[in-house]
Order: sequence, then C-alpha cells, then structure tokens
Amino acid sequence: MAKQEDEVILLDFWASMFGMRVRIALAEKGIPYEYREEDLKNKSQLLLESNPVHKKIPVLIHNGKPVSESSIIVEYIDEVWKDKAPLFPSDPYAKAHARFWADFIDKKLYQIGRNLYTTKGEEHEAAREEFISCLKLIEGELGDKPYFGGESFGYLDVSLIPFYSWFQAYETYGNMIIEHECPKLIAWAKRCIQNKESVSKTLPDLEKILAFVQHLRKRFGIDE
Amino acid sequence: MAKQEDEVILLDFWASMFGMRVRIALAEKGIPYEYREEDLKNKSQLLLESNPVHKKIPVLIHNGKPVSESSIIVEYIDEVWKDKAPLFPSDPYAKAHARFWADFIDKKLYQIGRNLYTTKGEEHEAAREEFISCLKLIEGELGDKPYFGGESFGYLDVSLIPFYSWFQAYETYGNMIIEHECPKLIAWAKRCIQNKESVSKTLPDLEKILAFVQHLRKRFGIDE
Repeated sequence: MAKQEDEVILLDFWASMFGMRVRIALAEKGIPYEYREEDLKNKSQLLLESNPVHKKIPVLIHNGKPVSESSIIVEYIDEVWKDKAPLFPSDPYAKAHARFWADFIDKKLYQIGRNLYTTKGEEHEAAREEFISCLKLIEGELGDKPYFGGESFGYLDVSLIPFYSWFQAYETYGNMIIEHECPKLIAWAKRCIQNKESVSKTLPDLEKILAFVQHLRKRFGIDE
Repeated sequence: MAKQEDEVILLDFWASMFGMRVRIALAEKGIPYEYREEDLKNKSQLLLESNPVHKKIPVLIHNGKPVSESSIIVEYIDEVWKDKAPLFPSDPYAKAHARFWADFIDKKLYQIGRNLYTTKGEEHEAAREEFISCLKLIEGELGDKPYFGGESFGYLDVSLIPFYSWFQAYETYGNMIIEHECPKLIAWAKRCIQNKESVSKTLPDLEKILAFVQHLRKRFGIDE
C-alpha cells in the first residue's frame, strides 16, 4: 500500500490529544507528512469536505483519500505502513484487549477530564472522584509492564500518552496530584517521553496546555 | 487460533442490537457456541467478572478469555475465524471506511434512536429530525450497492442490521415511516433478511421489540 511518493496531509489542532495520537503514530513509522493547523472557529474548506459527517480534526489525507477519527486513523497507519514499528500485537486476543482500553479512554477519560475544568460544586466533586478511579483502572491495566504494549510501545500507549500533556491542567482544576494517586502511570508517561522521540517531540508543554484551558474557561464563562 | 475444541460462550440479552451483532457474526462463521441469556436487573457473577469495567452485555468468552464491546468482539471473531466469511475487506482504506461508519452508528444512531422513545415535546421533535438525517447519511453511504460491504455482506452490514429489528418501535414513537424517508435502506434490510440466514434467524420479531419498548416506557415512567 505505502509507496515512496505517498502524499500525506494531516489536518489537526496543536492542543488536541486526538491529533497528537496521529502525530505520534506517523513519527513512530517515520512517515513524512504535511501538517496543517486548523482554526477551529473558522474551519478550512478541506476539513469540511474531508470529514463532512463530524467536521472534526484530526483528518489524515493519504493520496487524496481522507480518514477520520483518531483511533481509526492510527489503525489505518499501522496497517498501511506495517513494515516499521508495529503498533498492534499479532495475537487477536491481545489486539482486542488493546482496543477495549483505547475505547475506554475515548468514551470515559476524555469526557471526565473535560468535566474537571467545566463543572462546579457537586458535579465537579463527582468528576474528580470519577477521574481518579478511571486513571486507577488504567493504571491497573498497565500493571508492572514498562508499556501498555508490554515490552514495546504500542497502540494503547499511543492512545493514552497525549493525555499526559493535559495532566497539569487536570491537576490544577481537579485539585489533585496525579502522581500521588497513580505513581506507576506517571512513571510510564516519563518513560515514554524519555525513550520515545515520537512522544517527546509531539507533546506540547504542559504549561502551554494549562494556559489553553485557562483561555477555554474564560470562553465558556466559567472564569472571568 | 481457532481450534476444533474451542469453547465459546456468549453472555447476551435477546433485545440488544449489540448482542445481535455478535450472534450474526458467529452465525456467519458457523461457530457453535453456548448462549446465556442475562437478567439485566440481576446480572450473573460471570458477567460482572468478565466485564468488570462496564458490566455490560454482550461478552464473548472464548476458551475462558472474555472479550467485551460488540464492535471489538466482531473484529475479534473475524480475526480468529478468518477462513470463513471474511467480514472486513483486505484493503486498509476500505477497512477504515467501514470502521468509521460503524463508529458513527455506535455514537449517533443508538442514542438518537433511544431519544425517540424516551423524550417528549421539543426534545422529541429534535430527536425525530436528527434520527432521519442520521439514517439518510447512512443510506447515502450505502448508495446503490447491494450491501454496505459492496457485493458481499460485511462488518458494517453486521453492525447496522440489528437496528432494523427496532425500526417498528422507532416508527411508532417517532411518528414516521422509515421507508418513506429511506427506501433504499429498507430494501437493503429486506435483502439481508432474505439472503442471510445469519440475519433472519437472529433478528427478533419487530412486534416483540415494540412490546419491549412499551414495557421500557412504563418502567421509565413515560407511559402509565
């Protein structure tokens, strides 16, 4: 499938953990691509045409053909460029297991994390507790392995590590220190950053994400 | 992976469109399995242990190992029993495309369909419009193909056809005749039932689902 003359374009937004997944997968595979930053308040015609159903980033356009939804894009990348840095194990059970947890992150962690900086009072307290128990479940899945993929960095690692760049914002608005709750998870994140250039070069500064969330809260009318 | 002596158990609930997906995939592959109906108000210990995160059916237990989430189970079945009735195309782009629409069905169609029989007034009117536009998008994806999978019944067909058994309920509580809105989609559903024993033997009677939804509405306090 993959050829020397492949044209790969990524429509993305710098702070998106979903976009970061795709950037990490592309970096793992060593695929050259053109990055196009989208203005989410004024989306490009190309984005609207490439993802008419959801109109959301990230969209990967491979030789003119668009693929949307980060988890589907990462699987696509792994299948097309299969010779380098396989992200999925070959065993169907291990594969289903990785997919299950990535789906859990998509369905739960993202929304609950968002609730940490968009809610107040009781709702906020509930989000805080739910967020921690969510992270503990994920940490339980990691266990004593160096990576979620076992000895090597894989699909589930790609799916989760972008959230680390949002941790300072989650901590600030969730009144918590994640390392106190989930030390192994933080050790894993630091391991990814230290050992994987695909991660360290992709993740934005935690401070920059915190400033972005501060800006969001003002826009949502939560802070003045 | 698959062996003659495979033990396959399915924890399921008869009216679940997610469970039906798994039953259809198992039937397509000709896999013998033990069906265990769950009482959702009093879930079995096996279900709680097999899917401790979501505690939901369907769960496929293959040689003692549980797999949860219907779309992940169907992919697992397709990968393990790959010699018969492949559900996915081999081309990664066609595969990503099928996954995209299955994900759309999971995220949108299910929830909006549910809103048809759980809401009233303006919210109900919005659900009604959204449901039809959702079905029209899906019908657009079908186009003039006999199946979503093209010439053969595939992953996206498996993902969508169980919803057909809920159509009478959607029509009753949505005040609509789906065939008037989406005639090609209804023709496709009838084609699946006529040509695929895996479908005709799995889908419950539409009347039985309607009675079940009537019962749900009473339980939710919507009807007396």
